[in-house]
Amino acid sequence: MVRLAAKIWRQLPHTGTPRYGVWGFRVFGQRTHFESSNRSSMSIGFSRGLNYENQPPYSSATSHSSNLDSSIMAKGKFESDDMKALRYYGKEDIRLERIPIPVCGKNQIKLKPAFVGICGTDLHEYVHGPNLIPTTPHPITKEKAPLVVGHEFTGVVEEVGEDVHDIKPGQHVVVQPIIYDGTCGACKDGFINCCYQNGFIGVSGWGGGFSEHMTAPRDAVYVLPESIPMDIGALIEPLSVAWHAISISPFKEDDTILVLGGGPIGLAMLQCLIARGAKNVIVSEVAAQRQQYAKNFGAKHVFDPTKVDVVQECRDLTNGYGVDLVFDCAGVQVGLDAGVQALRARGTLVNVAVWGRKATILPDAFVFREKRYMGTATFVRGDFPAVIDALATGKLNPRNMITSKIKLDDIEEHGYKALINEKDRHVKIMVDMSAQA
Amino acid sequence: MVRLAAKIWRQLPHTGTPRYGVWGFRVFGQRTHFESSNRSSMSIGFSRGLNYENQPPYSSATSHSSNLDSSIMAKGKFESDDMKALRYYGKEDIRLERIPIPVCGKNQIKLKPAFVGICGTDLHEYVHGPNLIPTTPHPITKEKAPLVVGHEFTGVVEEVGEDVHDIKPGQHVVVQPIIYDGTCGACKDGFINCCYQNGFIGVSGWGGGFSEHMTAPRDAVYVLPESIPMDIGALIEPLSVAWHAISISPFKEDDTILVLGGGPIGLAMLQCLIARGAKNVIVSEVAAQRQQYAKNFGAKHVFDPTKVDVVQECRDLTNGYGVDLVFDCAGVQVGLDAGVQALRARGTLVNVAVWGRKATILPDAFVFREKRYMGTATFVRGDFPAVIDALATGKLNPRNMITSKIKLDDIEEHGYKALINEKDRHVKIMVDMSAQA
Repeated sequence: MVRLAAKIWRQLPHTGTPRYGVWGFRVFGQRTHFESSNRSSMSIGFSRGLNYENQPPYSSATSHSSNLDSSIMAKGKFESDDMKALRYYGKEDIRLERIPIPVCGKNQIKLKPAFVGICGTDLHEYVHGPNLIPTTPHPITKEKAPLVVGHEFTGVVEEVGEDVHDIKPGQHVVVQPIIYDGTCGACKDGFINCCYQNGFIGVSGWGGGFSEHMTAPRDAVYVLPESIPMDIGALIEPLSVAWHAISISPFKEDDTILVLGGGPIGLAMLQCLIARGAKNVIVSEVAAQRQQYAKNFGAKHVFDPTKVDVVQECRDLTNGYGVDLVFDCAGVQVGLDAGVQALRARGTLVNVAVWGRKATILPDAFVFREKRYMGTATFVRGDFPAVIDALATGKLNPRNMITSKIKLDDIEEHGYKALINEKDRHVKIMVDMSAQA
Repeated sequence: MVRLAAKIWRQLPHTGTPRYGVWGFRVFGQRTHFESSNRSSMSIGFSRGLNYENQPPYSSATSHSSNLDSSIMAKGKFESDDMKALRYYGKEDIRLERIPIPVCGKNQIKLKPAFVGICGTDLHEYVHGPNLIPTTPHPITKEKAPLVVGHEFTGVVEEVGEDVHDIKPGQHVVVQPIIYDGTCGACKDGFINCCYQNGFIGVSGWGGGFSEHMTAPRDAVYVLPESIPMDIGALIEPLSVAWHAISISPFKEDDTILVLGGGPIGLAMLQCLIARGAKNVIVSEVAAQRQQYAKNFGAKHVFDPTKVDVVQECRDLTNGYGVDLVFDCAGVQVGLDAGVQALRARGTLVNVAVWGRKATILPDAFVFREKRYMGTATFVRGDFPAVIDALATGKLNPRNMITSKIKLDDIEEHGYKALINEKDRHVKIMVDMSAQA
């Protein structure tokens, strides 16, 4: 296996962008008796055993799942011998329930979530979903809604698999939630974040942060240094999205950079850019409170695109050249149009936003100025450690992103709905899992 | 001036893509008496003196131009003491006329065009134009339609400006037709092909190839080695478009590459890719004759997108990975869609085509697979010499691109209309300027 990986690694095209060479098959836990060998889409050795203390999985690609749901997982009904968890059922339907506690399998870590951030993806699923959350069995996890959610989280290690020797119970950890098959072209090229069947812990199955216990593959878990508090650690995931986008972009410290959108990812982008030496970051954001956050986090200029001509402002600030880089963290047509126009010749627009719909471009605008456009997806292996290092060394100080801390019991009203209805007031609402006990 | 250029060169961001350091102000000829100092959009020292043997320019931003047009340049009326030239007036209106012969100014070369290719741009202007051909004074040339056309050409040097010492009468040359201001952000960054006011000899003024004589700036002229025939030399311009697109793309020899479109630029792309070591080039083209050309020029696979699923074929040929690079030389929505889908994770679509209209993209297709899109414009300083070298050393053998040679007198019927009506049969129709004498 190692030889095969090395061979493919040698065959990889070597561009100037940072790469990581880690990929491969991961073998997790035991198979459940529901995961039969006739599932052709499941790669050998690549399923995750969802053994919940010898009970069948609470969500499965089998006909048994609905029985389970109707019997022990009815809305608001908690079983005292199981654990509390938040599960997504569908649009505007999330439920606090009691579900079986997962068993820690081979090559796994069992942990008790400590702080869990509510992400834009969570909100999008709640308001417009199901979108990313599978309603038919996910090709890797074999799970479908209802699913435990929460993918930005830290926790305390409770137990480790019998073959895990480098992590110990009691340690503070953060989970990097990418689920990948290890067999597709993207994975073989080393881009597990682009896996053709990719999923996310807390979105596609394998449990999630909004639960009292969960298990995760060993290689998805990073130990937190003592200097990083658990609540700050729960910001590593969104910060890594930004860190990764910068890493694969043609970013240079002296660039003038326009960030479209001052939401959580836009502000994470701003902070990561500054942590990496950027001196000239412009933020375009409509909401007044978020404009203030952008100023506080170090944006050199903050523009309200409903009040000023952002393209002209960018040109004026760059002696007519245009900006070197645009990070689109908004995902709206008017922003894309402005971003492309604001770019200098050979400038690059990095699309970080998930759009969920088509966009229009003027190809000739890219032709005549040799502009570039690129998409960026979550993060790869090196990004979590890089962000952990930036937090530990004080280059990143994202505490002010946390605008509220709540209990799990209050998550729908004071979490989801607060973020939807008071968008301007909040950046990141953090669920303190210990506050619910 | 040299010091300023060097300073800016040092300030340039240094990416992995090839760069050229040549840029700067160019001073051409004498000003005409029409080019007064109150034209604020004209940079100092940057106009081209269009002195036609002491007559006023035949096309100008002044009120005199229309007088000239109605007196000596009526359709089909040739003045024996002037020269024959093809001028573009508007949609489906090109005229062979007699116009004044330009004078060779300082820092200029006067040449007698030998072979001139008819370009897709010429056809587009004829069928759908005026598009790129200015109908109001071009900011640099100050000229507007009617204009002499023809921008893919070789010629024999007739005369050189008094300060030109490195080119001699009688030499064979090819003209690199970019017109740039040297003062904008793009030019200062070294990207004269992206000049904010850019133009093209034979499109925006300064004469063109379809005339018995023309002048060009010294630095737009490259000497042809004796081993390159004049007709082949007239292919250097379209070949350089392809060469440049490859140069600024992330091309690697082992890449699997899809070329969308087997027209002149698509076939030029195919040949340049192979000349640069590509082993796996796939061409998607609807026209049967062009499919055959693509095979003859070395495409490993040629697909008719109306008959096969090009995306699936590309995946099948790459073990499911997708292609590394796509060069869009077609500029149609269905091609763009297929091209993006055919790309592997982190693959790049290079748009070479001029679209003239909007396109739609799915941003999420770029996000989830970290795909990239880039525009490429004509060529820069190093491209003509590189193509000349590839022709001289036999790496490029484009003779079979020339599907017909005609006289200037026949250009509308046997040139423009043949290319429009018998698109499948022709690749490049070359006007032999000596055949009209």
